[in-house]
Amino acid sequence: MNILQGLMPTIWSGNWAPAIRKRLFKDGESSIEDLCQMMMESDGEYSSLLISDRILTAFENLDAESLVHFFHVLNEEYDLDAQKVEVLAREYAREQNAGTLSALTLASEPRRLELFRRLNLAPGGIRRLVKVREELQKLLEEHPSLKKVDADFRHLFSSWFNRGFLTLHPIEWETPAHILEKIIAYEAVHEIRNWGELRHRVEPIDRYCYGFFHPAMEDDPLVFVEVALSGSIPETIQEVLQADRPVIDPGTATCAVFYSISNCHAGLVGVSFGNFLIKQVATSLKRRFPNLKTFATISPAPGFRKWLVEESAAFPAIHGLIDRFENGSAQTVDEMAGRHLKQLAARYFLVQKNDHGQPLDPVARFHLKNGAKLERLNLLGDRSENGLRQSLGLMVNYVYDLQRVEQNHEKYMKDHKVVCSTQVRKLQG
Amino acid sequence: MNILQGLMPTIWSGNWAPAIRKRLFKDGESSIEDLCQMMMESDGEYSSLLISDRILTAFENLDAESLVHFFHVLNEEYDLDAQKVEVLAREYAREQNAGTLSALTLASEPRRLELFRRLNLAPGGIRRLVKVREELQKLLEEHPSLKKVDADFRHLFSSWFNRGFLTLHPIEWETPAHILEKIIAYEAVHEIRNWGELRHRVEPIDRYCYGFFHPAMEDDPLVFVEVALSGSIPETIQEVLQADRPVIDPGTATCAVFYSISNCHAGLVGVSFGNFLIKQVATSLKRRFPNLKTFATISPAPGFRKWLVEESAAFPAIHGLIDRFENGSAQTVDEMAGRHLKQLAARYFLVQKNDHGQPLDPVARFHLKNGAKLERLNLLGDRSENGLRQSLGLMVNYVYDLQRVEQNHEKYMKDHKVVCSTQVRKLQG
Amino acid sequence: MNILQGLMPTIWSGNWAPAIRKRLFKDGESSIEDLCQMMMESDGEYSSLLISDRILTAFENLDAESLVHFFHVLNEEYDLDAQKVEVLAREYAREQNAGTLSALTLASEPRRLELFRRLNLAPGGIRRLVKVREELQKLLEEHPSLKKVDADFRHLFSSWFNRGFLTLHPIEWETPAHILEKIIAYEAVHEIRNWGELRHRVEPIDRYCYGFFHPAMEDDPLVFVEVALSGSIPETIQEVLQADRPVIDPGTATCAVFYSISNCHAGLVGVSFGNFLIKQVATSLKRRFPNLKTFATISPAPGFRKWLVEESAAFPAIHGLIDRFENGSAQTVDEMAGRHLKQLAARYFLVQKNDHGQPLDPVARFHLKNGAKLERLNLLGDRSENGLRQSLGLMVNYVYDLQRVEQNHEKYMKDHKVVCSTQVRKLQG
Amino acid sequence: MNILQGLMPTIWSGNWAPAIRKRLFKDGESSIEDLCQMMMESDGEYSSLLISDRILTAFENLDAESLVHFFHVLNEEYDLDAQKVEVLAREYAREQNAGTLSALTLASEPRRLELFRRLNLAPGGIRRLVKVREELQKLLEEHPSLKKVDADFRHLFSSWFNRGFLTLHPIEWETPAHILEKIIAYEAVHEIRNWGELRHRVEPIDRYCYGFFHPAMEDDPLVFVEVALSGSIPETIQEVLQADRPVIDPGTATCAVFYSISNCHAGLVGVSFGNFLIKQVATSLKRRFPNLKTFATISPAPGFRKWLVEESAAFPAIHGLIDRFENGSAQTVDEMAGRHLKQLAARYFLVQKNDHGQPLDPVARFHLKNGAKLERLNLLGDRSENGLRQSLGLMVNYVYDLQRVEQNHEKYMKDHKVVCSTQVRKLQG
Repeated sequence: MNILQGLMPTIWSGNWAPAIRKRLFKDGESSIEDLCQMMMESDGEYSSLLISDRILTAFENLDAESLVHFFHVLNEEYDLDAQKVEVLAREYAREQNAGTLSALTLASEPRRLELFRRLNLAPGGIRRLVKVREELQKLLEEHPSLKKVDADFRHLFSSWFNRGFLTLHPIEWETPAHILEKIIAYEAVHEIRNWGELRHRVEPIDRYCYGFFHPAMEDDPLVFVEVALSGSIPETIQEVLQADRPVIDPGTATCAVFYSISNCHAGLVGVSFGNFLIKQVATSLKRRFPNLKTFATISPAPGFRKWLVEESAAFPAIHGLIDRFENGSAQTVDEMAGRHLKQLAARYFLVQKNDHGQPLDPVARFHLKNGAKLERLNLLGDRSENGLRQSLGLMVNYVYDLQRVEQNHEKYMKDHKVVCSTQVRKLQG
Repeated sequence: MNILQGLMPTIWSGNWAPAIRKRLFKDGESSIEDLCQMMMESDGEYSSLLISDRILTAFENLDAESLVHFFHVLNEEYDLDAQKVEVLAREYAREQNAGTLSALTLASEPRRLELFRRLNLAPGGIRRLVKVREELQKLLEEHPSLKKVDADFRHLFSSWFNRGFLTLHPIEWETPAHILEKIIAYEAVHEIRNWGELRHRVEPIDRYCYGFFHPAMEDDPLVFVEVALSGSIPETIQEVLQADRPVIDPGTATCAVFYSISNCHAGLVGVSFGNFLIKQVATSLKRRFPNLKTFATISPAPGFRKWLVEESAAFPAIHGLIDRFENGSAQTVDEMAGRHLKQLAARYFLVQKNDHGQPLDPVARFHLKNGAKLERLNLLGDRSENGLRQSLGLMVNYVYDLQRVEQNHEKYMKDHKVVCSTQVRKLQG
Repeated sequence: MNILQGLMPTIWSGNWAPAIRKRLFKDGESSIEDLCQMMMESDGEYSSLLISDRILTAFENLDAESLVHFFHVLNEEYDLDAQKVEVLAREYAREQNAGTLSALTLASEPRRLELFRRLNLAPGGIRRLVKVREELQKLLEEHPSLKKVDADFRHLFSSWFNRGFLTLHPIEWETPAHILEKIIAYEAVHEIRNWGELRHRVEPIDRYCYGFFHPAMEDDPLVFVEVALSGSIPETIQEVLQADRPVIDPGTATCAVFYSISNCHAGLVGVSFGNFLIKQVATSLKRRFPNLKTFATISPAPGFRKWLVEESAAFPAIHGLIDRFENGSAQTVDEMAGRHLKQLAARYFLVQKNDHGQPLDPVARFHLKNGAKLERLNLLGDRSENGLRQSLGLMVNYVYDLQRVEQNHEKYMKDHKVVCSTQVRKLQG
Repeated sequence: MNILQGLMPTIWSGNWAPAIRKRLFKDGESSIEDLCQMMMESDGEYSSLLISDRILTAFENLDAESLVHFFHVLNEEYDLDAQKVEVLAREYAREQNAGTLSALTLASEPRRLELFRRLNLAPGGIRRLVKVREELQKLLEEHPSLKKVDADFRHLFSSWFNRGFLTLHPIEWETPAHILEKIIAYEAVHEIRNWGELRHRVEPIDRYCYGFFHPAMEDDPLVFVEVALSGSIPETIQEVLQADRPVIDPGTATCAVFYSISNCHAGLVGVSFGNFLIKQVATSLKRRFPNLKTFATISPAPGFRKWLVEESAAFPAIHGLIDRFENGSAQTVDEMAGRHLKQLAARYFLVQKNDHGQPLDPVARFHLKNGAKLERLNLLGDRSENGLRQSLGLMVNYVYDLQRVEQNHEKYMKDHKVVCSTQVRKLQG
């Protein structure tokens, strides 16, 4: 329990702050905009504490229209004063000391940042602030001007969720149920439909799950990865997920397969911490099971189908193939079509680039930036209806060679070089 | 263990990053300035992790001269570019969008802030960064220009140590020894000389100790307070501290006495969190022992003697009195002198003001700002040699009336009004 | 992890005990009877450790016939030597000292007790021993001579599960999932069909669950009780269990309803610890929610229907009534029939006695022995098909008045007096 | 908190059991003998709970004479009825069923065992019962008849402290202070004089301490061992204990030295659990520091001096030598005397036997029975005044070769064979 949560009951019971409560709330419910103004005008002590919870509760009850209005208020009325910044920047250029610096620092920060920091005082503050940004995210496409507020949230959360503060924890069948149910809810790659399926992901001795946590949100993971130990890199996700597969002795496994990574909070988009996760988990598993030699993923290719459809104008031969996947009927692929499809897939990963010169596929970008190698393309690697429809069943293995990830990462960062295996390179023809 | 600490051994063992290690460290030990430059130039991933520990270790081994030099480098070379801020502020005034805002936000932050955030990746990062600022604090008087770096530290730590993240924990005889030894080390008001004295402060059922902790420094308190339960507000600190005092049944106690508050880290000066501590602890104790009626302190008056000596030019009659205290021989005070001294003390607290219109005494300022009432002045309230010398033995009781702290606090914030009891007010004559 | 579990891997890996392993296990799998003999013959140190796990594993794989055979071996070959006891008893009568006493103590204990104690060394020993007795329980009816072995188990478990060792823990939605799934499995009164129903029992703020645990089986409850907070004593179990009921503020509740108590381990039958559970939980809840005034149950009457059917020969008027319940169609009862049925129920609880002079109903015996009062009889208190069929829908409220439970208990223990409310007494006519 | 401790406050506050309290305690303080009788006569439920704490408190306040009297009451009035046992044994011989067995089991147990089991209900029950036996131990020499009570305690504690229930925990500088202070108090081999010395034993990275704990006494170790990691087997205890020794990197250590083992509770004498401790700790350390090759002790020889003095009649040449040790002045030994002394020591360990055919030295018996090898005799291995006086400075290294301990143990158990190194064997000449 954080300090302020402990104080809340006493405060609300009226013992503490009758005067301020009377003044603040006398006219029935104040609007959220009024409450925010009160909080900024208060000297920041008790009033913040009193009002922060009130504001977040009001936010959580806003209707769609008021929500947009509120964010626009934040966007426009809680901005910085650019003229003032300009003046203070000139002053600092003239005279550089702690006073002029502090003045400039203060002025160049939109006022909403101080508002957000004060809202963190409320019970569950950080968690609720992440939700506030989650709501905001949903509005950005329609209200692009609100991206300013979003930029400030990202800036603040990047500081609060500094990777130095995060901790890694295993998520097991022995984990408290209220955390496990979040895994069910957050799983974004291969749906977990019920507690029985969850158990298959975390209880068998050849299955593991790890998440990063922030200490102020310790029962809510930020990102988690699911791992299967096996004797070789799997070609299909079905062999990983099937309920009646044989469980193997983890001490004999040579391969750890990262088969699902999920970011948990849309409110933390742009705050990077997932990139260390696989490597950290690989290190932990290696220490525990020294026989592990290979660390690989089996990953979807979420952009492949879309690209192929666009390309298909140029490759009429693949029209029929796509159709078969689209209606979920392609459970096999004949050899010729398969070869063709693989060549196209190799082209998709190795040749095609987006405007920044990077691969088109977002999952590929994530792993390649992390220093992984593109190891193998698996046709019909995901025969689920969903998998067939979204990526024509294509699944990709990326391999994390701990001795090379750093070099690979540097190469990728320098010139977006896609490190891949010989077999993939050959496909490109 | 945070994530990155877990990675360190693997990284250092050479498995991960032979290339970067070779490049970075090939010429023997790089200077700390070179290391900082490398870290800022790296793309921020692995190199940060590798170099952050190296930089902090280098810092911890700097000699006095190099330390000053390093801080000057931070001050001058890691500053912001005021011209650039000015340009970007103008641009933002013209065109307000997320892009122009982010550019301005980035530019208006001294580069050293990004350096500090990356240093947080090192094992024990935050704790070590707090120590970095602790070292800086020692240099500020002699090198006032470094106050710019200090201002940035304060800004960063105020965000990281946001009160919403702090947790309150009891500190007991059952607490791990490595935390208890820090209590011995940090106690700043009434010295704890050994483990036996420590035990007297935390083990008896009428003695309590509570501290605020940050979750990333969970075995190192930020601030702590020691509490004695009693039947009445004590007049002397000796009756609180004496080893052979009778222990009382806490269920019968009516008064909780806060007899010592210590801030633990000079590196966190200016980051406020102590002001909630007393009230939070009072709330906890009240819930546990419903018979408690009064929450009071017995506090020193560290500025009293100094002020009195300065005043003594105008009050020749008190010369002799001061002398008697100065040589520690005044174990009693005759009635007349006592009355005179109390009147002077009342004047010191109620009439004299500093340049900001606040009382001269720093302890008084702390409690009054918190909303406490100045309840009673106790001559010879601290008969220790130290107490006699520093405050002529004067000890002060401040009372926290939970129903009034908010109003008192507001009054004090508005016009520095000193709320006091009738008996103190009468002394003023 | 207990000490010996930590040793097992090393031992089995062959580093420790090659000689003994070779000797013991050279001829392939020894029979469980041979293994037991080996363990008793060993000097009790390492061999016990080695063999205990082997024996329990062998036990867990016995087929039905071998199981019976094994228990008969325990029964006959691991008994005490009555002649020897007789001799040593005479010797002790002649000469009473520690030597003669120890000899008698040793001789008068069936040898299987030492066997059981050594089996406790195996990983998960106590839990597996409880399962051994659970298997034994199933055989007692058909093999009554095995009750001797059972008596020894009860004697041993009564010592090991001494109530002074047990701890009370809340079971909540935050409890580890592998414990919660045991609650689903062990619930014996009102079935929990899935995780959603479990959540309804433990997550809402007006629902609680508490269990007793033994410290050597800390993730496996011994007995647990489910509690609903409410404004009054409920008349039906449906109002307690319905999914869409309104959740109430627990601070305003005046009544705590114990609506389900389940013993978890058939292997612990006859080892009493459930009798303190309700009173301990009542005490905990009272401390947490001081407004609670009434502690009551809503309990089934599992023997009622059976008794009534037997009685119905004498009361032909109730034939039709029973039939309506038997086919689950009685969702209402007309007033006259209801009055009649209640009178019969009152007779069942107050007048009818078993051979020991106690009430016929086992649930009534449990609560009355605990000191509860029979408060109210609720016709159609359980409208579930199951409830109608088993007790004709009758549910009973017992009230625990903490100020009177001791006296009630004593009265019941002395002459099986059934303490009941005036309204129940009046029913009896 | 165990269940019953939670109930105590409520019970004592008078809410629960006014009737029984009035009856039991009406005539002021009942004697402890009366209280015991009441508890045995009660039906075992609430009264036990009420009276158990009363009895133990009464016990803790008995004066010396009453203490002896009370134990004699236990000894004589709470004994078994040998005639009854004889009768029931005959009955069981005639007719073997659960009923006759239970009757015999019950009768053959001294009634005090039931008394002890009920006393375990009191808050802190087991801990206080262990203290009861500790008091008893002190009286046995003078009152040998009380050994009967002692035998019953040992029997009961052997069941309750079954090794399957014990857990191993590291004891570190991060351990709660109230446990660490017990280490200071219990250390029986090389005194720990203050917290600074304690820190030297548990904080450096090449120093470890582990203890066995019972889950119902989890802040009170049963036995603990202190370990030093080093590059070789030390010859003197001083090199292990000296405050300013260089700390070594534990990853490079090849030798783990067990330099102190202490049993914590005189009340648990005869209940064996120490024999697994060294091997379990060795296993833990080996897993953590795979470079460890040798597990050895540096142990005192507490019986050596006494034996030598007795022998000295036959060896007049050693008179002077002993004298020099006796007055603590022998800090060096000349070569000839040294060789002579070593030969005598070898004789003491290898040739001399007690009445059971085992070595005279109790420490030797402990380690040899555990399967250790007598590796080396170190003259002046303990140069402390105490060490010189008690064992003429002799310290012994025993080596635990995990691959051989089992065989060694078996050899020792079979014919008390002392396994020793060649160098020790040669000394014997």
